[in-house]
Amino acid sequence: MNLIDRDPLLLTPGPLTTTLRTRQAMLHDHGSWDSAFNRITGEICRQLVEIVHGAQTHVCVPLQGSGTFAVEAALGTLVPRDGKVLVPNHGAYCARILRILGVIGRASVELPFAEDQAMDPAAIGAMLAADPSITHVALVHCETGTGILNPLEDIARVVAAHGRALIVDAMSSFGALPIDARRLPFDALVAASGKCLEGVPGMGFVIARRSALELSAGRCHSLAMDLHDQWTYLQRTTQWRFTPPTHVVAALAEALAQFDAEGGQAARGLRYAANRRALVQGMAGLGLRPLLDESVQSPIIVTFLAPAHPAWDFRAFYDGVRARGFILYPGKLTQVETFRVGCIGAITPTDIDQVVHAVGDTLRQLGLPHSA
Amino acid sequence: MNLIDRDPLLLTPGPLTTTLRTRQAMLHDHGSWDSAFNRITGEICRQLVEIVHGAQTHVCVPLQGSGTFAVEAALGTLVPRDGKVLVPNHGAYCARILRILGVIGRASVELPFAEDQAMDPAAIGAMLAADPSITHVALVHCETGTGILNPLEDIARVVAAHGRALIVDAMSSFGALPIDARRLPFDALVAASGKCLEGVPGMGFVIARRSALELSAGRCHSLAMDLHDQWTYLQRTTQWRFTPPTHVVAALAEALAQFDAEGGQAARGLRYAANRRALVQGMAGLGLRPLLDESVQSPIIVTFLAPAHPAWDFRAFYDGVRARGFILYPGKLTQVETFRVGCIGAITPTDIDQVVHAVGDTLRQLGLPHSA
Repeated sequence: MNLIDRDPLLLTPGPLTTTLRTRQAMLHDHGSWDSAFNRITGEICRQLVEIVHGAQTHVCVPLQGSGTFAVEAALGTLVPRDGKVLVPNHGAYCARILRILGVIGRASVELPFAEDQAMDPAAIGAMLAADPSITHVALVHCETGTGILNPLEDIARVVAAHGRALIVDAMSSFGALPIDARRLPFDALVAASGKCLEGVPGMGFVIARRSALELSAGRCHSLAMDLHDQWTYLQRTTQWRFTPPTHVVAALAEALAQFDAEGGQAARGLRYAANRRALVQGMAGLGLRPLLDESVQSPIIVTFLAPAHPAWDFRAFYDGVRARGFILYPGKLTQVETFRVGCIGAITPTDIDQVVHAVGDTLRQLGLPHSA
Repeated sequence: MNLIDRDPLLLTPGPLTTTLRTRQAMLHDHGSWDSAFNRITGEICRQLVEIVHGAQTHVCVPLQGSGTFAVEAALGTLVPRDGKVLVPNHGAYCARILRILGVIGRASVELPFAEDQAMDPAAIGAMLAADPSITHVALVHCETGTGILNPLEDIARVVAAHGRALIVDAMSSFGALPIDARRLPFDALVAASGKCLEGVPGMGFVIARRSALELSAGRCHSLAMDLHDQWTYLQRTTQWRFTPPTHVVAALAEALAQFDAEGGQAARGLRYAANRRALVQGMAGLGLRPLLDESVQSPIIVTFLAPAHPAWDFRAFYDGVRARGFILYPGKLTQVETFRVGCIGAITPTDIDQVVHAVGDTLRQLGLPHSA
């Protein structure tokens, strides 16, 4: 389709576009027992804890697999078998947490919110007050299904005030949005290599409160996902328990060096916010409007309403934009026809301008209405 | 330590040395929703099934994570909650299967063998005859802890004759040793990207009997490890359920192309056997003897008895060999002092000669007895 032999740019929520420097780190093989490699692991864990200012209270446990593996590992390791988890739900990744809890046999209760509304801390507080059997709250920080951002600090304060523990799926926010463990109480924060840190996919990690992790021995439903076992082994040997994805780890180390050089979380957050502004403005010029109100829209991924026109066909639209060098993402809503465009990865507003141009061009080609 | 800026060669059982061509496949980013990437996944699965001649009866289910994740997934998905698994045990990876079964709550019974002896099919048959409650046998084909090879075909025949199902951990044999699904009955064969296929670590896969997999819906203890769910989603969408390790997948595709070009399993097995011969002969010249009798020694990894000398110190030996450009592997036995040398990866007998030279040099430097 793309006649020029060039990789398309990924405007997706991970895997995303990485720098060549990050990918070149994978040109080397590493031994998993070798101390040179294990120093890389140790340094990555130190940096990840530092990004959320957690060195005094928290530790990092890396885990093989995708981000969902790490979410399941955090729930299975930290929630006791007789625990009960409140899951505020306004999207696909919240629903996935509920599904995991059902499969691994932990009690859960759902608190539904509209998919275009941020979660309400007061409603969460009321639920905790009403049900003393709830032990944990499992929260999605930025729901990637829509791109909506939740008020993490306010919710964390409410959860702590009710004496419950908080597990945060920060998959698509970690590294881009400010999270400070010194004033935001959480037992676990889960993310992955291939998101806002701009590494490649293949490992997740959990920033866990040390005191909570210490109490979790023998609790997990799975050997591979037992974060307590992974952590104690790592401490004792400096090695991963089972074969680590060595090349993915090396790429993350290189990505973290660039993250630091860019100016850390603050600078990354600003770049993504600039990407989002350029995207929303540019698409508005084509007559395409975002699903969400700006007040709850994250700088991570934007859901756009598809043109209300009989000629709309996501597949044709996707293919047209792809032929112009850009990969978009389908919507994840059941009720409204949408598509998504990611603002994260090694891209800048200049790239976004090109994306908007390609989208306009494709709409014209498909005979769809547009304002430009 | 190594003053020359050159990557050491890995003489380890995975991660192992890969070709530059395989690593260069990771210089590209792929979208996980994109059909170009999903064609790669589909083609890999087709090739993996074909390597064991299973196209008529079996399907391939890829899984994020290390090989152990795939072993746990196979056990959790294919063994019913009220099943019972016989685990012949003569090493670390057999013991790991027993540990997994304990954690995920499947009944198991151990059949111990000496760690330097191959498993006895007749003893397995007797156990199956004596205990009708056993539903499955979980077998390690090549026990990487020592390098011992088990008589897989004979055992499979016995297990089938008793009407039980067989799950094989073929982690370190898949692609190097002949396994033919047309005459060797198994419900699952588990392996990973970073072993004898010479890809990079980061994904496992299970070659599962389609009829057994079809019966396994809703049985798994884990969402992330549910092979039935992964398989049905992959069939419906051509996509992985959760974010795939895109770069690892691309590297495996490239590694499989080279596997074919080399001449497939037969050629790879011959090269590894030549590596082993060169290794055992060369080390014999230094007075170093393998733990195992040649009749049960796999061409995958060789365990050597450490010199019985007070100056022996594995760490110093390892460092000395590493400084000369080669990474060895520690032994995994509790009773005898050993070390291991892998024969797998993108290496040839010429490389092995260099390894032997470096080992001899290091022994001299450390003041250890050697014959050369």
